[in-house]
Amino acid sequence: MNVTRLSLLFVLAWNVVYASPAPLPDWNPGRTRSAIIGFVEAVTEPGGAGFVPVAKRIAVFDNDGTLWCEQPAYPQLVFGLDRAKALAARHLEWHSTEPFKSALADYLGGLVATGVGGLNELTAGTGAGQTVEEYAQTVRGWLATAKHPRFGRPYTRCVYEPMLELLAYLRAHRFETYIVSGGELEFMRPWTEEIYGVPPERVIGSTVRTRLEMRNGKPVVVLTPKIDCIDDGAQKVLSIQRVIGRRPIVAFGNSDGDLPMLEWTASGPGLRLCALVHHTDAKREYAYDRTAAFGRLDKGLDEAKRQGWVVVDMKNDWKRVFPPRKRL
Amino acid sequence: MNVTRLSLLFVLAWNVVYASPAPLPDWNPGRTRSAIIGFVEAVTEPGGAGFVPVAKRIAVFDNDGTLWCEQPAYPQLVFGLDRAKALAARHLEWHSTEPFKSALADYLGGLVATGVGGLNELTAGTGAGQTVEEYAQTVRGWLATAKHPRFGRPYTRCVYEPMLELLAYLRAHRFETYIVSGGELEFMRPWTEEIYGVPPERVIGSTVRTRLEMRNGKPVVVLTPKIDCIDDGAQKVLSIQRVIGRRPIVAFGNSDGDLPMLEWTASGPGLRLCALVHHTDAKREYAYDRTAAFGRLDKGLDEAKRQGWVVVDMKNDWKRVFPPRKRL
Repeated sequence: MNVTRLSLLFVLAWNVVYASPAPLPDWNPGRTRSAIIGFVEAVTEPGGAGFVPVAKRIAVFDNDGTLWCEQPAYPQLVFGLDRAKALAARHLEWHSTEPFKSALADYLGGLVATGVGGLNELTAGTGAGQTVEEYAQTVRGWLATAKHPRFGRPYTRCVYEPMLELLAYLRAHRFETYIVSGGELEFMRPWTEEIYGVPPERVIGSTVRTRLEMRNGKPVVVLTPKIDCIDDGAQKVLSIQRVIGRRPIVAFGNSDGDLPMLEWTASGPGLRLCALVHHTDAKREYAYDRTAAFGRLDKGLDEAKRQGWVVVDMKNDWKRVFPPRKRL
Repeated sequence: MNVTRLSLLFVLAWNVVYASPAPLPDWNPGRTRSAIIGFVEAVTEPGGAGFVPVAKRIAVFDNDGTLWCEQPAYPQLVFGLDRAKALAARHLEWHSTEPFKSALADYLGGLVATGVGGLNELTAGTGAGQTVEEYAQTVRGWLATAKHPRFGRPYTRCVYEPMLELLAYLRAHRFETYIVSGGELEFMRPWTEEIYGVPPERVIGSTVRTRLEMRNGKPVVVLTPKIDCIDDGAQKVLSIQRVIGRRPIVAFGNSDGDLPMLEWTASGPGLRLCALVHHTDAKREYAYDRTAAFGRLDKGLDEAKRQGWVVVDMKNDWKRVFPPRKRL
């Protein structure tokens, strides 16, 4: 064997080791990781009994608490608080109207009481009048400076590294990965492609009404203060049907608001992967479920047990929670 | 040169001739075909001044009158008429309510007066109560037997062969092709993938409200009789923003209802291809524009001239209108 052949063999060996690493490296070996990998291998094995054609490999993910940290409050809520304060001088009516009143008083309890609806009303009210392009700039500007109060890093670095790996792993097996969130659509789109690899057309979320306006002689899409659709609970299913038009075969969530989406996904024919991210890690992130103000997971835990869904135990299943600095 | 080399050359030559045929074979050489091909080459040439990255190659197409025949009436309207008659015995109220009253009396004039709104109310009213899966079966069953009154062929064979070529040509250049129609979403999805190569998630249309119901212990999405959104005029722009979240660089329409979509597409930066299909061919299809009941093209023709958009002259630009029998 001459030197050229030897070095060719070396290159091939290197490719096997580094270019095809074991999947999901930040997931600890165990039942959860095996269930995910076992499912993906079963539905992608050509000729296998569980094979699913590429066009039907639809995977949906909740965002808050499933892909990024939602404690001590949804990042979108913090954004809304900051925007409300910045714009308060122009909106005297906010001092006597919820959810703006609580926002201006930094009264989180009042905001929590308004629910996902109030969260989106705050977002809609503070974004109104901007074109979608201007709004995207506002969101990017805020994300560039805002920091998580406990972790001291940008919110877009408070995403879950094992979930990023999972998204990439699914896409490598030709799944389309969608976000289906109660969060507002145009708040997510400016950063989901860079952070999650999920382009704008694969983001589904709560929507505010828009209108077409002429500005400087050109048509632009402008946000109004009116909510169009709150994408939570059963509405997540209806929104998936409207936008995608196919029932997913993979669904990940973390709260009772994701339950209808998981039930609908689970009830289709063939193999299905339904999973809940269970926040069990007070040390590295947060521990909460049945009594949480944001991301309450109560009925979901019972249903997961009854239906045999995967429950991701954040503390024990994940080697790390957030991305290392060099990665993101 | 030995025989092996000669046959290799022969294979290469064959590939050039047959595997890469001249694009858009059913478009006559001339200004229209050149404008389309020139645009596609300019935005896909790596390093070229007009280059557009793959992710931004979004092309939107109206359906009725742009991709398939909409005369003497929208196929969806004929479907609604047939469904109304089939279900009339169960809906005595229809005999005194528009648009059902006109539908049951075969009074097209009354239906025309109700516009795109009436069309979709008829569809919503006759589809209500079905799951989306059942509804898809109803649509498929109707399409399998219904025939165009003049051409005597199924409506799905009254699609425009040159436009099928254009869709395929754009996708071969890594465009995403979307349908953006005033027609009802779930009426289109059961057949757009097979006929146009446009999967369910790339179909945008008018929508009826849906609800999540439990049937036989399983969650299903059920159609209601209420209209959610009429996807016409300015709403086409708002729907594209909501579903795709990017401004297209290619837009094809054929009526004034497509005008805002074309104007919005045209007003973005960089090269744009905006085009109207002008029905000029009474012999092979229909000739209509400024005074038509379905697909009126009046302001659009003026605007196309003013902005220098492509106007497809069906009679002179297309070698054939409908697909040959062996193709579809």
